[in-house]
Amino acid sequence: MDTSKGKGDLGVQNLSGTGDKLVHCQDLESMLPKAVKRRVHALKRLQVQCANIEAKFYEEVHELERKYSTLYQPLFDKRRDIVTGTVEPTDEECEWQSDGDEDEELAEEVKEKATIEEAKKEETMPQEDPKGIPEFWLTIFKSVDMLSDMLQEHDEPILKHLRDIQVKFSEPGQPMSFTLEFHFEQNGYFNNAVLTKVYKMKSEPDASDPFSFEGPEIIDCEGCQIDWHKGKDVTVKTIKKKQKHKGRGTVRTVTKQVPNDSFFNFFNPVKASPDEEEDDSEFTLATLATDFEIGHFFRERIVPRAVLYFTGEALEDDESFEEEDMEEGDEEEQDEEGDEDDDGDFDPKA
Amino acid sequence: MDTSKGKGDLGVQNLSGTGDKLVHCQDLESMLPKAVKRRVHALKRLQVQCANIEAKFYEEVHELERKYSTLYQPLFDKRRDIVTGTVEPTDEECEWQSDGDEDEELAEEVKEKATIEEAKKEETMPQEDPKGIPEFWLTIFKSVDMLSDMLQEHDEPILKHLRDIQVKFSEPGQPMSFTLEFHFEQNGYFNNAVLTKVYKMKSEPDASDPFSFEGPEIIDCEGCQIDWHKGKDVTVKTIKKKQKHKGRGTVRTVTKQVPNDSFFNFFNPVKASPDEEEDDSEFTLATLATDFEIGHFFRERIVPRAVLYFTGEALEDDESFEEEDMEEGDEEEQDEEGDEDDDGDFDPKA
Repeated sequence: MDTSKGKGDLGVQNLSGTGDKLVHCQDLESMLPKAVKRRVHALKRLQVQCANIEAKFYEEVHELERKYSTLYQPLFDKRRDIVTGTVEPTDEECEWQSDGDEDEELAEEVKEKATIEEAKKEETMPQEDPKGIPEFWLTIFKSVDMLSDMLQEHDEPILKHLRDIQVKFSEPGQPMSFTLEFHFEQNGYFNNAVLTKVYKMKSEPDASDPFSFEGPEIIDCEGCQIDWHKGKDVTVKTIKKKQKHKGRGTVRTVTKQVPNDSFFNFFNPVKASPDEEEDDSEFTLATLATDFEIGHFFRERIVPRAVLYFTGEALEDDESFEEEDMEEGDEEEQDEEGDEDDDGDFDPKA
Repeated sequence: MDTSKGKGDLGVQNLSGTGDKLVHCQDLESMLPKAVKRRVHALKRLQVQCANIEAKFYEEVHELERKYSTLYQPLFDKRRDIVTGTVEPTDEECEWQSDGDEDEELAEEVKEKATIEEAKKEETMPQEDPKGIPEFWLTIFKSVDMLSDMLQEHDEPILKHLRDIQVKFSEPGQPMSFTLEFHFEQNGYFNNAVLTKVYKMKSEPDASDPFSFEGPEIIDCEGCQIDWHKGKDVTVKTIKKKQKHKGRGTVRTVTKQVPNDSFFNFFNPVKASPDEEEDDSEFTLATLATDFEIGHFFRERIVPRAVLYFTGEALEDDESFEEEDMEEGDEEEQDEEGDEDDDGDFDPKA
């Protein structure tokens, strides 16, 4: 068992060591003398009050995060300026002891991969001193499974223009939410300087099931309109279809636009039905769940620790989760292929 | 994929969808032009500053928890008074709609288990209207694997005298810690009214590995002296040993006290060596890890939601973790048996 389980104020997920005596307990409750059962119900009412206090606690934690985001911002701005080459860090700002070690560690692997890497290097680093850190964010997108799963070849040249990703929290008094801002430099694909994705959260117990409350939960998200330059929208593709006239048997060719796989579909998410989840298809729910997970991951990991995903150090930390995730990843890929890749020109109505 | 992954400000554990491109990334870093690598190191220095800010954030979260513990306390006191029978709740305080449903749900199971339950009922509920909620905490200890693993038959009569469990947080300015207080009614086993277990925490990045920081971590714990009545200490047992005199061949019987399995060993935890973990044995580290996990679980789950562990509803929520935990549980049990149960009279020096 690893100590990380004993870790953190925030380990609400640490539920190990429980679970198998449920039936015993519920039977026990149902077998209790009326007078005792009555008192148990009094405790349950107290427990509901606890859940409501807990909701307030999480709202204050959200406030704290808002407060701290202003403390992180200057560092993130500095990061952006270094990444974009707007600012050249001083020698002092660049001191990093473990240079030597890294190189040693990697010497062998590097040799093995030398040829491939050379190729990559030429393609990605034209001159020996490029501006800032080329393809900083694109490299992260390629390195993190959850993002590379969405990434298409035609997205890559666009993401080379991504300058920064920021997280903005909802103002106090407003409904709890956070916004991911993707800041782009001027580019030949769309006019927006910033693409946004808003994640709306809920931090109150369900009246129907107050005891399942575990803190704020993403309940909805909203993308933005991308103002694509003519013919540059990678989220659609134009396909030709031959149609045979029943009577005359003449053949005509019609062209139509159909959805196209792209990371930029992230800004046009599927909508959950306003009613209960039951109404949504398995696919919609799964797609939403994945989208929420990605939004949460941008906010909790990628934006706060971007450089560690660029270098791969953060992936090292996440290794313990690797096996699980690989499985999930594989399943998804299969699904996607089944849904889209295999029949490139499916009917958008489908 | 389940939505819970997209859940919560506190889901630092949600790292899915990453992990497999590590080598690629590190190679990439090592292949970067010097000027770019230099800028990456500047970002790493900024990242260290972020980790230090994050540590302050978690300290403030701890403060928030302290503040909220005072808001929960009146409800927990009410719970204690109802559990101990000091206060009889009013009819209004006991209203609970889902009575009917529960009974239906359970009717069948109950029938099946009727005989067993009858037996249990007689043994656990002598009269039809006992005082408060008999064996409230003992039932929780029996229901939660992590606790029932520690529980011995000889602990049960003692735990029937447990009136309340409270969590106390360290004062602001003090080193971060929390204390579990086990409040007992007067009993025939020991004089202490309260048994305590202090968990010391650390909320700052390791200088050696600042990027692995994920929030406060339990680093040490301290039990308390139990003032057992003569002959009532269940954490030791007296065993007889025959010794044969080498020369004369005469046999004499010596008695000695040896450690005995008991939940109350929880208040006499193994000590980690003050130096680096490396110095501790696998067994010590595993034992400490389990102890930290249990302390964390009391604080995060049992104390805040006791009634839900009594009824089993909380175990329902934890079901998704069941499989994993069963495995872990099993391994442990085997270990323990291997270490203690099998050779009942091992030498305490060992």
